[in-house]
Amino acid sequence: MKFLEDIIISHGEVLPGDVLKVDSFLNHQINIEIVRKLAEEFFKIFKNEKITKILTIEASGISIACLTAMQFGCPVLYAKKNKSSNVGSDVLSTTVYSYTHNVNNSIIVSKKYISEDDCILIIDDFLAKGSALTGLIEIVNKSGAKLVGAGIVIEKAYQDGGAKLRESGVRIESLAKIKSMSTNGSIEFCE
Amino acid sequence: MKFLEDIIISHGEVLPGDVLKVDSFLNHQINIEIVRKLAEEFFKIFKNEKITKILTIEASGISIACLTAMQFGCPVLYAKKNKSSNVGSDVLSTTVYSYTHNVNNSIIVSKKYISEDDCILIIDDFLAKGSALTGLIEIVNKSGAKLVGAGIVIEKAYQDGGAKLRESGVRIESLAKIKSMSTNGSIEFCE
Repeated sequence: MKFLEDIIISHGEVLPGDVLKVDSFLNHQINIEIVRKLAEEFFKIFKNEKITKILTIEASGISIACLTAMQFGCPVLYAKKNKSSNVGSDVLSTTVYSYTHNVNNSIIVSKKYISEDDCILIIDDFLAKGSALTGLIEIVNKSGAKLVGAGIVIEKAYQDGGAKLRESGVRIESLAKIKSMSTNGSIEFCE
Repeated sequence: MKFLEDIIISHGEVLPGDVLKVDSFLNHQINIEIVRKLAEEFFKIFKNEKITKILTIEASGISIACLTAMQFGCPVLYAKKNKSSNVGSDVLSTTVYSYTHNVNNSIIVSKKYISEDDCILIIDDFLAKGSALTGLIEIVNKSGAKLVGAGIVIEKAYQDGGAKLRESGVRIESLAKIKSMSTNGSIEFCE
């Protein structure tokens, strides 16, 4: 998506440690106009699918998931990273390793809000090694719901998460796919 | 707001430990149609104020903040609860005690995204003892921005957070104010 690639070039920043900082518009400050355009693009891509619910993971997936859900007219469900005293015990859970924070997070979703009658679109901001997305897919599979696919804002295509999950049969649509990036500021996108 | 009170009665659940569970529509599953109506109400309340940015805190404030920001046509900024390797060092921070999780969280906001030129509306899902809101107000004050006020979805008015902050001069508008609630299911709202 040329629009997003231009935004990444103009607003993004490549930091040491393979970090693409996009916190001016996507995951700290949220530019609603930009995120709305991304949500409209997800709708264009998946509009012919039956989607009953959008699944994401706290915290950075929530904004894009909500604006996408407005397009589809369906609810959002976000996986929580730590067992809250408010969620209850009847949950689906799995473990996700966070490369950003170097910790294992147990992510959970209440069984009440996902069932075999659901058709799930996963939405998230980043895909790199695929840890969070794999965890969300596991939760969908455990629930018995149908997984329609995953919509990702930015995929680091030089890492293997997306390729492995596509090989396993998951439909993944990424709005920007980064081929390479460097701390000198250069960012190259896949064709 | 009668609409929200009815939703809380029909969808909410009072659990032991002073927990009002509203995760079917507000803070785990998000019912976009309901949250949009709440956002429209915040717009009605604050529409005569100049607001340049909406400030909230991850994760449960993000959905309502984003939909409210769509009404105002401004960006959202959400405070992060743990120092992320992606945020950088140039931050405003304070400490917030979470009664839900019984931990002290350091919350941070990048200085880049809030300045003395900003007029800030704080949006959050709950107000009880006022810990999170007090932390967000501290961050606004440290930044030099103008604090317009705070829009809260559900205030536990039988706790003293709201009263104390109002006494200190902060404008707080809560869409539903709970006078009392009990695990037998009764929920009483303030007039």
